[in-house]
Parts: sequence; structure tokens; C-alpha cells
Amino acid sequence: MNNDCIFCKICAGELPATKVYEDQDVIAFMDIAPVSKGHTLVIPKEHSDPITGTPDETLAKLIAVAKKIVDAQIRGLDADGVNVTQANGKAAGQIIPHIHFHIIPRYNTSENTKNWVPGKYENQDEMQKFADKIKNSIRNI
Amino acid sequence: MNNDCIFCKICAGELPATKVYEDQDVIAFMDIAPVSKGHTLVIPKEHSDPITGTPDETLAKLIAVAKKIVDAQIRGLDADGVNVTQANGKAAGQIIPHIHFHIIPRYNTSENTKNWVPGKYENQDEMQKFADKIKNSIRNI
Repeated sequence: MNNDCIFCKICAGELPATKVYEDQDVIAFMDIAPVSKGHTLVIPKEHSDPITGTPDETLAKLIAVAKKIVDAQIRGLDADGVNVTQANGKAAGQIIPHIHFHIIPRYNTSENTKNWVPGKYENQDEMQKFADKIKNSIRNI
Repeated sequence: MNNDCIFCKICAGELPATKVYEDQDVIAFMDIAPVSKGHTLVIPKEHSDPITGTPDETLAKLIAVAKKIVDAQIRGLDADGVNVTQANGKAAGQIIPHIHFHIIPRYNTSENTKNWVPGKYENQDEMQKFADKIKNSIRNI
């Protein structure tokens, strides 16, 4: 447990949360500032951050619970779609530094579900350069 | 393979893609309309959609590769942060119906990383009602 982490405190029962799921390793609870109502967070009980610092076994458990929440939001909230999203670092919009997946119900009436502004590469060479930089940096972690 | 699916065709080598990673079950390649340059997609070779229709074992493999790509974008592209995001259904912004994780490099200068408009519940009771609807709809899938 990280004593400065509010998600660790939620896991320890020291801070309240409206839980929808709990097992030995993972809890899911309501985001109190929902992007849409029903917005749920899925987190590991053991402190971990960001995704690159989280064991594959933990990620497997988190994404399996995320899947259950997506299913439950579709069936229980009549969601037309669901976003699963995760931020690493302030530059990506992360606020609480304890890994969490946002599960956000969406409706056919939802606006701005992604704020997705597609960009483009100058040409194939530029795309290949970016690809090479990524490819050459992949390692087993 | 789904013959109507462009991601299946990429996996089969029938359509081109700029790949950064490939193993027996998973490939990662450049999004040709990047939200930011280096934007990568991680998909399973076997057709599957959406997250609720994807086996936990496949999700575990996908998220483990997503983690490697996040690490590679931070190290290879000097990204300050990275978003991992996945859409289920048109209402959530999904375009290609073959499960995929978007891995998007972010920088301290990035704008609108999330288009996150926090909402709120009327009161604790309303939040609890949404929580109950989700909780009561969770099943083993």
C-alpha cells in the first residue's frame, strides 16, 4: 500500500467508494465525476503504476474485469457502446497515479465520445520512421 | 478470418500495414490517421469483437503487447505520456469491428488529450442506483 495514494486508501477501506465489483485482486467502483453516468474505474488492490510498471498477470486480471463491466453496462444501463480507456502520465490526462481503467457507457445520443482529430503523415517514409523508432524500442518488460 | 474485415486482411497479408510488432497471436501497426504521430493499433490475429466477445486469454495477450508499445513509445518517441484506449460499438466511436487497442503517444504540449468533461450525480442515491444496475448485471463471461 502506498500511504499517499487515494486509490490504495479506497482498497484499504480508509476512504469510501461505491463499489460494483470486488475480488481478491481487483475492485471496480463508480467514478465520482463521471463522463457519463455509470462511469466505472477498475483498479488493482496492489499499488502499481503506470501500465509499464504493472505485471502482465495483473493487467490480465484488470482487463478481464473491465470486460465484465462493459458487459454489465450494456445489459444493466442499456449502453449502446462502451469505451475502455487508460492514461499513463499527466501528459495523457492521468490524475491519480495508481493504474486504472475507465469504463464509460456511451449512447447513440452521446457527443464527443473520443475528441478524435485524425492527423496524417507527410508520406509513407515519415510513418515508417515513427514505426522504426517504436519497433527498435520494444523490449521484454 | 472474417472476409469482410480489413484488420483480418492486414493479418492475412492481403492489405498492407506498417507493423511495429508481431507474434503468433498479436500484431501492432501504425494507425494511418494518427491522433498523434506514432499512434499504434494492437489487434489479435484471430477475428474477435467487441471486448465482450473476446476470450480473456486473448485480452491478456493484447494488453501485454499494449504495455510493450507504451514502453517503446516513451523510450523511442520520447513521449511524456501515453493513452491506451479501446472502443466498443459505434456509439463509443468504434469504426472497424475487430477488437483493437489504440496506443497514443502524448506530450506535455498535447492539447485535448481526453476531451474529458466531468459530470456529476444529483446525489449519492443516484450514484448508488447506477452502481446497483451495473453490480446486478455482472456475470461470468
